[in-house]
Amino acid sequence: MQFSSDNWAGASPQISQALVENGAGFASAYGTNELDKAVEARFSALFEREVTVLTVSTGTAANSLALALAMKPGGIALAYREAHVIEDECGAPEFFMGAGRIEPLDGDDGKISSGSLGAALKRFDPPFLHHGRATALTMTQSSEVGTVYRPQEISQLSAMARDAGLAVHMDGARFANALVSLAVTPAEMTWKSGIDMVSFGGTKNGCWCAEALILFDPSLRENAEYLRKRSGQLFSKNRFVSAQWMAYFENDLWLDNARHSNAMAKALAEGIGASDHARLAWNCEANEVFMIANRTTEAKLRTAGAKFHEWNRPAFLKENLAGDEAVFRLVTSFATTSQHVSEFVEALNA
Amino acid sequence: MQFSSDNWAGASPQISQALVENGAGFASAYGTNELDKAVEARFSALFEREVTVLTVSTGTAANSLALALAMKPGGIALAYREAHVIEDECGAPEFFMGAGRIEPLDGDDGKISSGSLGAALKRFDPPFLHHGRATALTMTQSSEVGTVYRPQEISQLSAMARDAGLAVHMDGARFANALVSLAVTPAEMTWKSGIDMVSFGGTKNGCWCAEALILFDPSLRENAEYLRKRSGQLFSKNRFVSAQWMAYFENDLWLDNARHSNAMAKALAEGIGASDHARLAWNCEANEVFMIANRTTEAKLRTAGAKFHEWNRPAFLKENLAGDEAVFRLVTSFATTSQHVSEFVEALNA
Amino acid sequence: MQFSSDNWAGASPQISQALVENGAGFASAYGTNELDKAVEARFSALFEREVTVLTVSTGTAANSLALALAMKPGGIALAYREAHVIEDECGAPEFFMGAGRIEPLDGDDGKISSGSLGAALKRFDPPFLHHGRATALTMTQSSEVGTVYRPQEISQLSAMARDAGLAVHMDGARFANALVSLAVTPAEMTWKSGIDMVSFGGTKNGCWCAEALILFDPSLRENAEYLRKRSGQLFSKNRFVSAQWMAYFENDLWLDNARHSNAMAKALAEGIGASDHARLAWNCEANEVFMIANRTTEAKLRTAGAKFHEWNRPAFLKENLAGDEAVFRLVTSFATTSQHVSEFVEALNA
Amino acid sequence: MQFSSDNWAGASPQISQALVENGAGFASAYGTNELDKAVEARFSALFEREVTVLTVSTGTAANSLALALAMKPGGIALAYREAHVIEDECGAPEFFMGAGRIEPLDGDDGKISSGSLGAALKRFDPPFLHHGRATALTMTQSSEVGTVYRPQEISQLSAMARDAGLAVHMDGARFANALVSLAVTPAEMTWKSGIDMVSFGGTKNGCWCAEALILFDPSLRENAEYLRKRSGQLFSKNRFVSAQWMAYFENDLWLDNARHSNAMAKALAEGIGASDHARLAWNCEANEVFMIANRTTEAKLRTAGAKFHEWNRPAFLKENLAGDEAVFRLVTSFATTSQHVSEFVEALNA
Repeated sequence: MQFSSDNWAGASPQISQALVENGAGFASAYGTNELDKAVEARFSALFEREVTVLTVSTGTAANSLALALAMKPGGIALAYREAHVIEDECGAPEFFMGAGRIEPLDGDDGKISSGSLGAALKRFDPPFLHHGRATALTMTQSSEVGTVYRPQEISQLSAMARDAGLAVHMDGARFANALVSLAVTPAEMTWKSGIDMVSFGGTKNGCWCAEALILFDPSLRENAEYLRKRSGQLFSKNRFVSAQWMAYFENDLWLDNARHSNAMAKALAEGIGASDHARLAWNCEANEVFMIANRTTEAKLRTAGAKFHEWNRPAFLKENLAGDEAVFRLVTSFATTSQHVSEFVEALNA
Repeated sequence: MQFSSDNWAGASPQISQALVENGAGFASAYGTNELDKAVEARFSALFEREVTVLTVSTGTAANSLALALAMKPGGIALAYREAHVIEDECGAPEFFMGAGRIEPLDGDDGKISSGSLGAALKRFDPPFLHHGRATALTMTQSSEVGTVYRPQEISQLSAMARDAGLAVHMDGARFANALVSLAVTPAEMTWKSGIDMVSFGGTKNGCWCAEALILFDPSLRENAEYLRKRSGQLFSKNRFVSAQWMAYFENDLWLDNARHSNAMAKALAEGIGASDHARLAWNCEANEVFMIANRTTEAKLRTAGAKFHEWNRPAFLKENLAGDEAVFRLVTSFATTSQHVSEFVEALNA
Repeated sequence: MQFSSDNWAGASPQISQALVENGAGFASAYGTNELDKAVEARFSALFEREVTVLTVSTGTAANSLALALAMKPGGIALAYREAHVIEDECGAPEFFMGAGRIEPLDGDDGKISSGSLGAALKRFDPPFLHHGRATALTMTQSSEVGTVYRPQEISQLSAMARDAGLAVHMDGARFANALVSLAVTPAEMTWKSGIDMVSFGGTKNGCWCAEALILFDPSLRENAEYLRKRSGQLFSKNRFVSAQWMAYFENDLWLDNARHSNAMAKALAEGIGASDHARLAWNCEANEVFMIANRTTEAKLRTAGAKFHEWNRPAFLKENLAGDEAVFRLVTSFATTSQHVSEFVEALNA
Repeated sequence: MQFSSDNWAGASPQISQALVENGAGFASAYGTNELDKAVEARFSALFEREVTVLTVSTGTAANSLALALAMKPGGIALAYREAHVIEDECGAPEFFMGAGRIEPLDGDDGKISSGSLGAALKRFDPPFLHHGRATALTMTQSSEVGTVYRPQEISQLSAMARDAGLAVHMDGARFANALVSLAVTPAEMTWKSGIDMVSFGGTKNGCWCAEALILFDPSLRENAEYLRKRSGQLFSKNRFVSAQWMAYFENDLWLDNARHSNAMAKALAEGIGASDHARLAWNCEANEVFMIANRTTEAKLRTAGAKFHEWNRPAFLKENLAGDEAVFRLVTSFATTSQHVSEFVEALNA
């Protein structure tokens, strides 16, 4: 009953196997060999246009590079108040940006509202030297609380940001989970909706270590490559990530993994929603479930062996919690089994 | 006949296999699980004292973190003129240091001389606000030109630097090659010779991606962990590196790989030394061979299929090159075979 | 009727005169001559203990240096939501901190509440690598909205912050105005109330350019001097600021200027409070008055020649504004005359 | 007999007087009032084209801003080995550049040679990600050793740098001294010779505090203003510098000061050149004289009350010093008198 996080799983067997198969032979280093190029072609096919692919070591690095690419002196990135770039990256985005700032935006269900974005943009219009200037908007898909921006929502926010001259970034640490949830194409969820840059995550969805920054504007490539190298993020044996990417996309492994993960989350959410001992904090739209339960129930679950984290009650959770209730996060992955889920629900109702 | 670089090889089969074997099951993320702890214990045993192990994605990151840890406002790191931190890291050390500077030192055979270090230290003593202040000394073992510092040399430089209040770092991207060349222990080559921090590289010696910063001073751990996280260098599924480390040390794979690599280099050097068509630029002490040859010989070798890089003639190469002679670097690795070597020597003498 | 800002005034005649008198003769540069030392002694007498005085070019630089001094990797400074360091310094504090972050706190009347500070400190206790860590608390005295922290308030916030290991900084751009408002000593308002560092401003109170960072902990001096030099903030002819400081303190010019300025603000506030055409947003405690008025009144005042800025309605202003009312800021200085004030009140009531 | 530095002098009486005259009345802050605009117009007239003028607090800040403006990720500035930006700014340029690097160039007489520049440019052509990339060339006029680049020299270096895509900066801390030495116009010495940016210094030539970065490319203004504000370098009462600039240019005070200063240096150099007890290290071309003398002579001069600094023997000083000879720097200023000079020469020959 392991629901701590999707990065507690190991790797899909196909991913590890790809490393075995690619271990022999010589290939040029630093992302310049045939396999590396094949990966870029594969991503371009996926996104239905030529893209730049910059493999990095972590999602934090991908997000930070993206915001750094958009940075200007005095620059400010706009992000959801509880976004990973604010809460969980220890200042890496500000470090990569060269002392930039991230301003928090609000909205319901863990998503930036157009009203909050509009108010922030207005503050920097006309520009006033003393305030700094907005340079980028970043949104997380699926969001930190397991919800998903609809393409129309993305388009609306992107258009507002672009009109004000901002670059628009998507933190896709759980890109695949959002994609299969929406049943749209990668292109529709990104550049066709106004996205300029994507942090494309594979690690949480069955890879060992596969994160990339995807750029739709080829003119950004040069600066991006220097920024990556200068942050110690250019792997020498880059092909070990490329091999993972190839296996990830082969036979739609990535979509299968995400569908499985989302299905497990849905089953879990249904079990919780139907229980008398807990309820859902909000709808589950990807592979994260947020459960409200009291301490007695929590203790019962932990005693039964369930693993999960308590979640700080998010700012947008307007509903008051009763008595000693708290919010708990449950995350599923490719490695979650139906048995994990049914055991959890049984323990909950025991 | 692939001698371009030791990072053009793939991975030892044992390394890839370890990833297959560790792929199943759940384990806590971000370097906190049992395997991660076992790695730290393994390194402590290796170094005969308790050490802090910070896995990062690249040697550049390990070096940069080390220099950042030693940084103070106005700080300056001292390094050999042609050190990797100066020539090949695109400013990453300065970036991690928060706008520090690296001052070049000189010496023969790619190694810092005590005279050059002494002159640099004298310049900052007494301290003068306008100059900045020296905060760290870094030396590369084995060096960028394949030579190796003797323990007495390390001790001498370290003592001078420590007396002046500097931290002392070893860039051990090719740590194993130097170690087996000297036939000393890891402890003797590092902290027993005055080293405070080591960039310990596994990638060039048979791993896919295994680099770590080793700290001998436990009081540095806290800042080091924040610096690593803030630079986007904390792997979520860190166990994928830990699994490599465990396989790397098991049954002395790492020493065997390094001995093989050095032996191949030695054979290559002997072949070149005995040839009428080329000569050695200096002695080969690890797994890199530097050959002086003219353009005709170079063309002959390339036509025969040999792969290698021309090397900028280093500053310390006092000997004049004749006519159209140039310097070429040949690197061996665990994957180099005797056949590669003998083919190369044959082609050279053809 | 000039109420735009206290930095729209020129300089007190005594300040300019001091520059004339000190223009001749040679003196060592970079803050090392007798006059510079006399200034440090003068400040030490003022604060009743030995202090370190670092003259810089702007209040922004003083604040930024202070937060940089307290910085650790992953560090976060805590400040009032509408503090100058957040709203009006274009990211300078983050830049000096080396990519630090400033987290906003809340409270009434433009002052940090102990509840808001407590909640922020709790978030970083126990420390969690991914969040970063709180390193400094900064409060503005007098505040950005013209209110003043009582010594007990300062003591309470400082004690909370110190218990959590934070350094405590006071942004004293209007130090003198707060001091005469409270009728306490500089020591009582600062280190006796738990303050570690003060940005001591003279520019807004009659100097041309006189800002200094005051440190109560002598062990910070060395790093502070390197940080100042490295930010291009060490004046060569530093004595031109020292001469201003000496004139500033001579015969209590600074206190007289602040008393005059506060008295003008008080008269202005009384006139507004007694008017049927406007009202005070909150109490005036130093030299800034915040007036609520509708657009008709605003237009009338501007037509009459009054100069002042509209103010973004602060977050803590809970009272709803009626109709087309807005908030306006009026600032007085040593150069404000009773006639300016009475003309303004007449125009308001016309 | 005060020859320590030109920043040991105070200010020309006209400069201080201008501050007295401008002390009354209100004017908008942060460089936006009429006097500030008049200064920009005055500089534009001086340079015979529209220029952007950014007043900052120190020459270090002006140089650092210039190099930051030219910076790209992985960027490297090229400077003379003993340039002020390398030796005397405590890492400020690297800090403003956001972790850039400065690479040293060589040449005779304290000036960059075209050979050294060519070699450096060649190293970055074609670009190689791992090395970083050259982004700016900076030269000091007059140089750190009192020599002066001829317009043809400036043009040659600038052309080489511009062809390689670099921005070209002149550190004009002693701009006026070079200008009157060459008897050319400001335009000829700068943009007509390929200069893009000038650090224009007034402090060393009779001002209290007057340094500005001059930009010839108007498209740089926006970023420059944000960079300046973000570094805490935007004076609130900026008119206190503007008043100095107006007085500085009025009736050619700046040229008169520089001519006087250079004449004093020339007289000093002639006295030293004619003496049996000392000799010139190289020609004096502006307001700095470098004297070679032995310790006995040095002691004699110091006993007689002469004030001057010993100078590190520069790298380009090929001539061997005899016995206990050393190099000493003597700097003249607007405040140096003929009596200082004759007393010094007398003491030398005593």
